[in-house]
Amino acid sequence: MANLGFIGLGVMGGQMVNRLIGKGHTVTGYNRTRSKAQPLVDRGMKWADSPRAVAAAADVTFAMVTNSAALGTIAEGPDGVLAGLSKGKVFVDMSTVSPNVSRSLAAKVREKGADMVDAPVSGSVITLQEGKLSVMVGGRRETFERLKPVLQDIGPKVTYVGDNGLALSMKIAINLSLATQMMAFSEGVLLAEKSGIAREIAVDVLMHSAVASPMIQYRGPFVLQQPDEAWFDVNMMQKDMLLALEMGRQLDVPLPTTAVSNEFLTAARGMGLAKRDFAVVFDVLARLSGVSK
Amino acid sequence: MANLGFIGLGVMGGQMVNRLIGKGHTVTGYNRTRSKAQPLVDRGMKWADSPRAVAAAADVTFAMVTNSAALGTIAEGPDGVLAGLSKGKVFVDMSTVSPNVSRSLAAKVREKGADMVDAPVSGSVITLQEGKLSVMVGGRRETFERLKPVLQDIGPKVTYVGDNGLALSMKIAINLSLATQMMAFSEGVLLAEKSGIAREIAVDVLMHSAVASPMIQYRGPFVLQQPDEAWFDVNMMQKDMLLALEMGRQLDVPLPTTAVSNEFLTAARGMGLAKRDFAVVFDVLARLSGVSK
Amino acid sequence: MANLGFIGLGVMGGQMVNRLIGKGHTVTGYNRTRSKAQPLVDRGMKWADSPRAVAAAADVTFAMVTNSAALGTIAEGPDGVLAGLSKGKVFVDMSTVSPNVSRSLAAKVREKGADMVDAPVSGSVITLQEGKLSVMVGGRRETFERLKPVLQDIGPKVTYVGDNGLALSMKIAINLSLATQMMAFSEGVLLAEKSGIAREIAVDVLMHSAVASPMIQYRGPFVLQQPDEAWFDVNMMQKDMLLALEMGRQLDVPLPTTAVSNEFLTAARGMGLAKRDFAVVFDVLARLSGVSK
Amino acid sequence: MANLGFIGLGVMGGQMVNRLIGKGHTVTGYNRTRSKAQPLVDRGMKWADSPRAVAAAADVTFAMVTNSAALGTIAEGPDGVLAGLSKGKVFVDMSTVSPNVSRSLAAKVREKGADMVDAPVSGSVITLQEGKLSVMVGGRRETFERLKPVLQDIGPKVTYVGDNGLALSMKIAINLSLATQMMAFSEGVLLAEKSGIAREIAVDVLMHSAVASPMIQYRGPFVLQQPDEAWFDVNMMQKDMLLALEMGRQLDVPLPTTAVSNEFLTAARGMGLAKRDFAVVFDVLARLSGVSK
Repeated sequence: MANLGFIGLGVMGGQMVNRLIGKGHTVTGYNRTRSKAQPLVDRGMKWADSPRAVAAAADVTFAMVTNSAALGTIAEGPDGVLAGLSKGKVFVDMSTVSPNVSRSLAAKVREKGADMVDAPVSGSVITLQEGKLSVMVGGRRETFERLKPVLQDIGPKVTYVGDNGLALSMKIAINLSLATQMMAFSEGVLLAEKSGIAREIAVDVLMHSAVASPMIQYRGPFVLQQPDEAWFDVNMMQKDMLLALEMGRQLDVPLPTTAVSNEFLTAARGMGLAKRDFAVVFDVLARLSGVSK
Repeated sequence: MANLGFIGLGVMGGQMVNRLIGKGHTVTGYNRTRSKAQPLVDRGMKWADSPRAVAAAADVTFAMVTNSAALGTIAEGPDGVLAGLSKGKVFVDMSTVSPNVSRSLAAKVREKGADMVDAPVSGSVITLQEGKLSVMVGGRRETFERLKPVLQDIGPKVTYVGDNGLALSMKIAINLSLATQMMAFSEGVLLAEKSGIAREIAVDVLMHSAVASPMIQYRGPFVLQQPDEAWFDVNMMQKDMLLALEMGRQLDVPLPTTAVSNEFLTAARGMGLAKRDFAVVFDVLARLSGVSK
Repeated sequence: MANLGFIGLGVMGGQMVNRLIGKGHTVTGYNRTRSKAQPLVDRGMKWADSPRAVAAAADVTFAMVTNSAALGTIAEGPDGVLAGLSKGKVFVDMSTVSPNVSRSLAAKVREKGADMVDAPVSGSVITLQEGKLSVMVGGRRETFERLKPVLQDIGPKVTYVGDNGLALSMKIAINLSLATQMMAFSEGVLLAEKSGIAREIAVDVLMHSAVASPMIQYRGPFVLQQPDEAWFDVNMMQKDMLLALEMGRQLDVPLPTTAVSNEFLTAARGMGLAKRDFAVVFDVLARLSGVSK
Repeated sequence: MANLGFIGLGVMGGQMVNRLIGKGHTVTGYNRTRSKAQPLVDRGMKWADSPRAVAAAADVTFAMVTNSAALGTIAEGPDGVLAGLSKGKVFVDMSTVSPNVSRSLAAKVREKGADMVDAPVSGSVITLQEGKLSVMVGGRRETFERLKPVLQDIGPKVTYVGDNGLALSMKIAINLSLATQMMAFSEGVLLAEKSGIAREIAVDVLMHSAVASPMIQYRGPFVLQQPDEAWFDVNMMQKDMLLALEMGRQLDVPLPTTAVSNEFLTAARGMGLAKRDFAVVFDVLARLSGVSK
C-alpha cells in the first residue's frame, strides 16, 4: 500500500480520499477549512497543517483545487507543496488549470528532484462513486507507470495522453462537448414538447437513447427542475469554452458548434443566469421558443 | 405467447424476429427479397407471400421499412397490410417516416376496425443485441398497454409518449443530437490532436468520458478509420435533420446547433461524401483545420 | 414610346406605373381593388377590367403581385393574362415566386406564341423613387434586349442573368444577406450600447460606415423605433430564407450565417413577433443581452 | 487655418496629409521611413525628425499607426509625442488599438496639460479619396468641438460618440459586420453560381443591390480574383473579431453571426490562407461547396 498525500478536500477530493483509504492506502490530508476534513480524519486520514507538511510526509501528493490561483497558493511560499517536495517524490495535480500554468509548475517541481503530472478527471462525484471515473495523465511515461496502480484505485479508467500539460488539453477538448450536447439536448426536448409530448417523457426517452451520454444522464432532469446549487455554473463552463476557443484559434481548428453554444452561455449571463448550472441554456432556448417556465 | 407478424426482415427487423422467436412467440414474416428470410425460416418463422397474408395470419403485425414510400408499398393495394387487417388486430409501424404520414395511415387502419401505433426505436443493431434498445410508442394508451409485454421482448425500454405520430416526433427530437454530438466530438478530437495528443488516444479518452453517449461509443472509432459501408449516411442523416428543422420552424423552436451542424452535412455533400457515414463530418472539419487524412 | 400593361398596382407597382407614365409610355392597368388605381387613372393610366384585358391591350404586360398563389390567380382562367396573350407579346413578371413556378408559367406563355421573363427587383419603394432600383432579368436574351429600354425607365440598373427562373434564384441569393446583415448590425449596436455609447449615436455611425448597405440605411432607424407596419415581416423574410436554405441543400452550398440568422427569425416567431418587420431580430438579441426595450 | 502635425505617413496617413494641405493647413510630418514622406514634402509638408518634434511644432498632432505596439513606440521615450506635448495642445490618435490602451495613454497626455481623443475611421483609402470617410471621436466634448472643423476636412462625416476609448469600441462594433457581411455575400454568390448564373454576373448584381455596403463594393470583385496583396488580411480581421468577441463576453452581448464567421476565418488559417485578404472566406466556402477555383 502507498503512502499518499491529498490537498483540497472538497466534495470531489474528499470522495477520492475516501476511496483511497478504503483501498488500504495511508493518506495524509490538508484543506483550507479544517472542519470539512473531520469526517475523513474519523475514517483514518492523518491531518497535516500545511501543503508543505503533506508533501513532506507523503511519497505521492495529490491536489484538487479550484483554479490556477488556488494552485499557486498551495504550491508556492514557505508552506507550499514545493517546499515539502524532495528527490523521488511525485506531485499529481488533478485541478483544471491552463496547460501552460501546469507546465511551469512541473518545471519547478523538477528543480527539486521530484516529478509532476497533470491528472484531470472527466466525470462528477456520482461517476466517481459509481466507480466509473476517467483519469487522464500528462507527464513522463515512467512516472505514469509508477502512479498507475494508485490512480486506478480512483479511476478505474486511467489513460496516459502524453507530455506535461496534454492531459489538461485533453480535458478541455472533452469539456467543449458538454455545452454543445446540452444545447442539442435542449433543442430536442423543446421540439418534442411543442409537438405535444410531456416534457418529463421527452427527458426520460432522451435519457435512454443513443445520445444519452453520462452528462445528459446527470443533467437531463435539470430541464424539469433547475438545481438550487449549480454543479458547474455558466461562468465556470464559459471559462472552459473560452480556453477551448483560444486553443482553436492558436492551433487553427475551427470550432463551429462550440462557438455557437458559447454565445448561448453569454445569453444566459445577459439574462442574469450566470450563477446557475450551465444546463440553464435550456431556459434561454425555452424563452426564445415562447415556452413559459 | 403471442401470434405475431413481421414485415421487413432487414438487419434490424431480422434481429427483432430472432429475439421474438427466442422468447417463444409465433412469428409469420414477409420480406421483399425472400432469400434474406431463409435463416429466420430455419429458426421457425413462418413465411407468408404478401404483407396482406402476414396481417391476415397475425394478431399483431410489425413493420420495419426504409421510408414513407416503402411504407406505402407494403400498406396499400390488394396485397397490402390494410387488406389483411380486421377488427381487433394491431399494426405496429417501427419505420422512421414523417409524423403526418403515420397519422394518415393510422386513420385508414381504424376504418378497418383495427388499430395502429408508431413505434420507432433509438439505437442500432448492436444496441438491440445488447438488449438495450429503447422503443417509443405513439397511439391509443389501451393499445399500448396491450402491446407492452411484446414490445418489452424487443426493447426492453418501452415508453408511451402520446397520440399517434408523437413517437416519430420524439425520434426526430433525438436524432437532431446525433449530428451535433458528432460535430462537437470532431472539434474535440482535432483540438486534442493539434495540441500534440495522438488521435487514437484522444478518441479513446473521449469514449470513456462524460460526453460518451452510445452514439459516440459506436462512431468514435470512425474518425480513425471511416467505415467502407455507412451505418447511416450523410443523406439519411440530413433527411432527419431537415425534418427537425422544418418542425422547428412550424413550432417556433430555434435550433441553432442543429442548423449549424446541418450546414456541415451539406459541406460533406459538396465535398463528394454524401454516401459516407455521417461521421465523415470529422473529415470535413479536418480538412478545414489543415489536417491531412 | 411603348404600349405597356401593368397588373398589380400596390405601393411598388403603382410607383412603377407613375415612372412609366412620366417617361411618356402608354400604360393600361388592372388591380384587384380598383379604388387604389384611381390616382394613376387621374395621371393618365387606362383602366382595364381584367388581367386578360390588360394583356390584350398591351404589347408588353408587367405583373407585380404577392406570391405564387396570386400569380396563378392573375395568370390562369378565362380572365387571366394567358387568355389575353398572343404572338409577339411579352409578359414580364416582377413578383418574387419560386424559380420553378416561374419556369412553368413561361412554358405556358410560349405555347401562346408570346414570351415571358422573370424580372424581380432588389430595393424598396424608396430605392425606386431615388431612381436607384436594380432589375434582374431571366429568360431569352433577345427578349431581354427588346425590353431593356423600358426596364431602364424603371431601373435604371438592369442586368440579364440567364435563362428563365435564374433572376429569381439571383433575388434569393441577394435576400439571404438581408437577415444576416441585420443580425450583424444588431450585434454591433448592442455591443456599442453596452460599452456606453448612446444607441442613437451607434446607429448613426454605423449608417455612415463601410457596412452601411442600402438595407442598413433603411432599417438602421428601426432599432430605435420598430415601425408599426412591417416593410417586410419576419414570416416573409423567413420564407425567402427557407427558399435559400432549400436551394443550398439541393446545390450543396453550405450557408452557415444564413442558417444561424434564420434560427433567430424563428426565435422572433417564438417570442410572438412574426408580424413585425424582420429588423425585430434586434429586439430578440436585446432581450438575450438583458437590454430592456 | 490650423497648425497641424501628422505621425505615420502610410497610404492612409499620407492621403490625409494631402487633403489637409489641400485645405490650406500647415502640416509638420514624421514617418519611420523618411523616403515615403518625400512626395508630401514636395507638396509643402514640413519634415520633423521625431514624434516629439512634431508635437512640439504643432497645436494638434495626429497619429495613424499599425497597432498598440507602434503607438507605444511613437508616444513614449525621449523622442516620443508625450515629450513634445504641453498645455493646450491636442493629440488625435486615429490608430485602431484597444480601448484600454487608448484610455491609458490619454491619462498620460493629460498629465502634460494637453488633451487626447481617439478618432478611428471607417472606410478605406478609396472612401477617403471619394470624400466619404467617417470619423468617430472619443474624449472630452469641448476638445471634440475644437477639433471638429479640421476633422471635417478629413471626414467629412464626423461623430462624437462619448468618452475616451468609446470611438474605438464603436469601430470594433462596426468591424464585426465586415467578416459577417463577407460570409453572407459569399454564400449568395455561390448559391447563384451553382444555380447556373455566371459568377461575374452574380457579383455585379449583388454589388448594385440592397445589400451592397461600401465594403461589399470594394471586396465584391475579390471573389473573382483575390488580390495579390491583402487590404486587410485574415489575421488582422481575426484580431478585431476577437476584440469584439471578448467585449461581447464582458458585456454579456451574444454575437452569434460574429462567432460563426470567426470560425471560418480560423478555417482560412487552417487552409494556409492567413495572409490573404479576409475576402478569402469565399474560397473556404467554395471549397466546401465543391466549386473548383
